[in-house]
Amino acid sequence: MRGTSAIRGISQLLRAHLKPLTPQLTPSSIPSISYSFTISATSSVSDMTIKTKTPIHKVSVIGSGNWGSAIAKIVAENTAENSEMFDIDVRMWVFEELVGGKKLTEIINAQHENVKYLPGIKLPSNVVAVPDLLDTVKDADLLVFNVPHQFLPRICSQLKGKVPPTVRAVSCIKGVEVSGDGITIIANYISKELGIYCGALSGANLAPEVAQEKFSETTIAYKIPDPNDTIDARVVRALFHRPYFHVNVVDDVAGVSLCGALKNIVALASGFVDGMEWGDNAKAAIIRRGLLEMTKFGREFFPECKAATFTEESCGVADVITSCSGGRNHKLGAAMIKSNRPIFELEDELLKGQKAQGVTTAQEVHEFLERRDKLEDFPLFTAVHDIIFKGMDSYALPQILEDVEQKF
Amino acid sequence: MRGTSAIRGISQLLRAHLKPLTPQLTPSSIPSISYSFTISATSSVSDMTIKTKTPIHKVSVIGSGNWGSAIAKIVAENTAENSEMFDIDVRMWVFEELVGGKKLTEIINAQHENVKYLPGIKLPSNVVAVPDLLDTVKDADLLVFNVPHQFLPRICSQLKGKVPPTVRAVSCIKGVEVSGDGITIIANYISKELGIYCGALSGANLAPEVAQEKFSETTIAYKIPDPNDTIDARVVRALFHRPYFHVNVVDDVAGVSLCGALKNIVALASGFVDGMEWGDNAKAAIIRRGLLEMTKFGREFFPECKAATFTEESCGVADVITSCSGGRNHKLGAAMIKSNRPIFELEDELLKGQKAQGVTTAQEVHEFLERRDKLEDFPLFTAVHDIIFKGMDSYALPQILEDVEQKF
Repeated sequence: MRGTSAIRGISQLLRAHLKPLTPQLTPSSIPSISYSFTISATSSVSDMTIKTKTPIHKVSVIGSGNWGSAIAKIVAENTAENSEMFDIDVRMWVFEELVGGKKLTEIINAQHENVKYLPGIKLPSNVVAVPDLLDTVKDADLLVFNVPHQFLPRICSQLKGKVPPTVRAVSCIKGVEVSGDGITIIANYISKELGIYCGALSGANLAPEVAQEKFSETTIAYKIPDPNDTIDARVVRALFHRPYFHVNVVDDVAGVSLCGALKNIVALASGFVDGMEWGDNAKAAIIRRGLLEMTKFGREFFPECKAATFTEESCGVADVITSCSGGRNHKLGAAMIKSNRPIFELEDELLKGQKAQGVTTAQEVHEFLERRDKLEDFPLFTAVHDIIFKGMDSYALPQILEDVEQKF
Repeated sequence: MRGTSAIRGISQLLRAHLKPLTPQLTPSSIPSISYSFTISATSSVSDMTIKTKTPIHKVSVIGSGNWGSAIAKIVAENTAENSEMFDIDVRMWVFEELVGGKKLTEIINAQHENVKYLPGIKLPSNVVAVPDLLDTVKDADLLVFNVPHQFLPRICSQLKGKVPPTVRAVSCIKGVEVSGDGITIIANYISKELGIYCGALSGANLAPEVAQEKFSETTIAYKIPDPNDTIDARVVRALFHRPYFHVNVVDDVAGVSLCGALKNIVALASGFVDGMEWGDNAKAAIIRRGLLEMTKFGREFFPECKAATFTEESCGVADVITSCSGGRNHKLGAAMIKSNRPIFELEDELLKGQKAQGVTTAQEVHEFLERRDKLEDFPLFTAVHDIIFKGMDSYALPQILEDVEQKF
């Protein structure tokens, strides 16, 4: 199916040691491209080596929750298998704490398991837990951010000025920060704070399933300003793609980031539908309307967004489907309608201290839209807000959606 | 919200009796258009009537299964509420049979309930069950087809030559007929057989939920060749749209029809995923890949298809989601993987004589693609076929999908 192994072997060898002269983004270009290489003369002939122009990249993961640990596992599996491209060791920053009297970093490095946040999953032995943030990123040229977003400002302030501008980053922190004033995309925040390029990873990725190597897909938005940069889309895909974790690289950082935030509002709405026991037709209708409002929001406020990011990528349609089948926001929305109790009471009870991001996002997006006099263009987002915060009857949803539909 | 009732009353009166001079397709045009009318002098002044130029349309529904009856209910609710546009009575063709010793048509007309195929749901009293097909369509200028597709050739042969060419039709029969030779869209088959225009209705519409007036959406593809035709998109929407059944009219008959057929292949695949217990990430991934293959199939073989029909409309993304949550094909796919038994045995056992359309469609689409040497472009469709008919291991799905993904 994939060509003979001999041809693949030669091709891998070439790709490992030589740098293509042409941009590397065209999948079909690999068989026909030319390669350049440099012979560096040293003291003896036996010492003569083919000096690669493709540098070896050193990767660090910042964060070690369940998603952080699952991503560190993926990344370390790939650095081990692609030593021509990556330094095998992957340092992972761990907020140090004691677990059963022992330091968590020491447990991880001895047992190769994050017993606190991802128990039962073996981490590759080349994941090295490090308690000091600056030690973690030392000499790394590719940083993977994966911490709860409220910790990010402190982490960025510690890293500020300590990271060379040639470093590249990928943020696995979902979403955006919305206020009445405007929207901050988390990847762009990292870029701005640290003065480095940062892409974004988001998809239908429930962490426990990814950690168990159950099949899933993800979307990475990554588009470096300089096409000759050595950390390009190909390198990023090689770092994250696994047989059980398929990666599609796009160039729409804003779209991918917005999907990760706005889908939580849709998940609340789908929870309402399940709370009312309206069935599968209604749920699919709400998902569809939600996706259309997400797309419209992106295209209206970030004109560089592509509609296909929302309707065709894992970060869009697939993540909305997953979030509307389960997850915190869906659960909370359903419980609110069934119990007829305020969502904040239920959040404390059901989520045991965790937050359902959708409630905050619904409020922030509402404020943002209200200031711009755009509430009427987003009837589902507005209804979710009004059902939670203004006691609106969720049974009015079809009528509210009807008011902005096709009319003749 | 929608204007005062007094203004609406006057506007309705005008629209009821007068015909607009301008085409009626612009939603915003209603307040500003001019109306023409004719006074027809008859024998006495009291007999003088305003003769409308907007004809009153007479609607018949052909079919009375659970979906046929649910659609007849919707249509009859709308004809009763829009008497300026429609004749109130809706004749529904019923294949006559005895239920408890009584004729089904007589039971329906006496009890206003299809006790055999949609028990527990009251039908409006203006649904009139008729056992004779030609009696059903007599004087009707709008036909709604809603029978199992295998009955269609006989019905069309009975109607051939008996239906004036000015009659318009909407087919609620999902899907297409595929063979190695080509694809026949059911709406186009009706058009050709009867020499009338026929549109298509398809969406995330599980019949029992629609019958219970649980919220859902649908898509109608309807684009008459002559914009001055009196049965236009506005009339069609007025006939089907209800507060609980939202209609979006598009002009992509091929796209809407293909969605209704191809989604069954995707539903089988999602059943496989549930049979393997791969979780929500994998299911969303399969739905996403399925939607992309459906879109690609449409665009490749029916270039007039619009991608948005697949990715944005109820007949596309929403119906795929519903069909992958439940329904026959999903159930059968899951049972096949769990039991490791041939799908045909399970079909007899689980579906009690009903057919899972996806199995046939997977086979027909495979033959169609194979003849055109296009199997490799549709790896999910091909895998579903091979898992059912060639004993392929369903656990190979991720690898098969990976082979055609983005590469650098």
